[in-house]
Amino acid sequence: MDIHFNQVTIIGVGLIGGSLALDLKEKRIAEEIVGVGRSRENLELALSRGLIDRYQPDPESGVKDADLVVLAVPVGAISALGKKIIPRLKGGALLTDVGSVKSPIVRELEAALKPGISFVPGHPLAGSEKGGAGAARAGLFAGNRVILTPTPKTDPDATRRVRRLWEKVGSQVFELDPEAHDLILAAVSHLPHAVSASLVQAVFRRFSGEEIKRTGAGSFRDLSRVAASPPELWRDILSLNREPMLEILADFRKRLVELETYIKEGRSEKILEFFSEAKKYRDAI
Amino acid sequence: MDIHFNQVTIIGVGLIGGSLALDLKEKRIAEEIVGVGRSRENLELALSRGLIDRYQPDPESGVKDADLVVLAVPVGAISALGKKIIPRLKGGALLTDVGSVKSPIVRELEAALKPGISFVPGHPLAGSEKGGAGAARAGLFAGNRVILTPTPKTDPDATRRVRRLWEKVGSQVFELDPEAHDLILAAVSHLPHAVSASLVQAVFRRFSGEEIKRTGAGSFRDLSRVAASPPELWRDILSLNREPMLEILADFRKRLVELETYIKEGRSEKILEFFSEAKKYRDAI
Repeated sequence: MDIHFNQVTIIGVGLIGGSLALDLKEKRIAEEIVGVGRSRENLELALSRGLIDRYQPDPESGVKDADLVVLAVPVGAISALGKKIIPRLKGGALLTDVGSVKSPIVRELEAALKPGISFVPGHPLAGSEKGGAGAARAGLFAGNRVILTPTPKTDPDATRRVRRLWEKVGSQVFELDPEAHDLILAAVSHLPHAVSASLVQAVFRRFSGEEIKRTGAGSFRDLSRVAASPPELWRDILSLNREPMLEILADFRKRLVELETYIKEGRSEKILEFFSEAKKYRDAI
Repeated sequence: MDIHFNQVTIIGVGLIGGSLALDLKEKRIAEEIVGVGRSRENLELALSRGLIDRYQPDPESGVKDADLVVLAVPVGAISALGKKIIPRLKGGALLTDVGSVKSPIVRELEAALKPGISFVPGHPLAGSEKGGAGAARAGLFAGNRVILTPTPKTDPDATRRVRRLWEKVGSQVFELDPEAHDLILAAVSHLPHAVSASLVQAVFRRFSGEEIKRTGAGSFRDLSRVAASPPELWRDILSLNREPMLEILADFRKRLVELETYIKEGRSEKILEFFSEAKKYRDAI
């Protein structure tokens, strides 16, 4: 199946949106790419780097002739922006997003859809740091994974087209329910960030940076690295993904308290079992 | 101050003990190096690699003519072995160790000391994985740090000699109380390992390795890496460092519950503050 769009509008021309724009042009999937965003400086940069063909600061004007619209703004802004542009989309337009939390976005945008417009929720697992148009690069998605989370309301043909698009730029695509997506991402991405920030908070409230640098080993470096991720992104993700996050955090606390109990009670054979099992799990991936 | 020993006995010729042996020979700090260990195969390997000049499977015979004895066995075995060899040490002998927990070892070995024998507790921060004599390499300690934890009972001249030894092999040496050492190491090394194993336990009890591999991002990889460390080592460390570990785990749980409460109550501005502060801390090291 070949795939082609006359006009693609990308809202949010940052690392993800900008890189996708480059690939869509290079693979001749898009005839014309329109960039939309709040920062004229960023849009000018996107234009000068050849990521987009033209730009339009106003989202409602920017989407009106688009055959495909990609919502690539920060995850906390997707729902509101989607609801704002849906009434302006032309018949037959395809809408997708790149948000790293799916259920709340799917719920809000499906409720706002109008006949003739298809929405296919998506999540490329390709780094979510902010970076602006300057961070975009061709080939970002090659070898990476993209999760699509269609629902019973999603047009299967629209899903096929969005799948094809991501495959064309080199991604491996698979599908999950929005709820299943949000729970597993809570476990393998959002929990690690929450744990890392909590670890840094705990250690730095007791010791100075100097003391930590002097004694800290590779383990602290590994575990604290993602605590330096953009705080606004993690505010948005943890706020949006509230229920799954609370569920996974409770799981984690249970295991932590289990280990703590073994230490308190001096049950070294249980500590060994706990670490041996964890090693076996980790070695398998 | 120059430093030289006629006979150095290294008990435990693994990564740390074997690498130290190599450096002591190369820097002409030791005239003769005797290896002691339970595995004859490992001692033969150490001999054939030139780490040691000869070996002696029995610790009590191996230390009797030593001017310096280095206890480089796994941390859980140091106290018992130290108490066993102390009665056999000759007058004027210097004893040190490389254990990553200090207070319990210091307490037990200081109680067992006899007049004329000096014990200087030490901890090279240079990787503590098991590896055997095959993993030893010259220069392991160059640019690394070593913590010495002398007490009021430690002979200051003995401390100076051990410090000099580590400096000669390229380490940066600093001193801490045994208790201060154990608390900060609990925070910057033992807690990260406990957290990593708990994270892996929580996530793998809910999802399969296949699901995790498919969706897991760099953050999960970072946070779970040290869960694959040798379980016996972590059983020993967490068992030995019980009180500081429980104190630091309680700190960590408090911060985690703080974040959990913000998520539960939908206080996104507090989540932002929590992550912003953690980022500021992490960026500073």
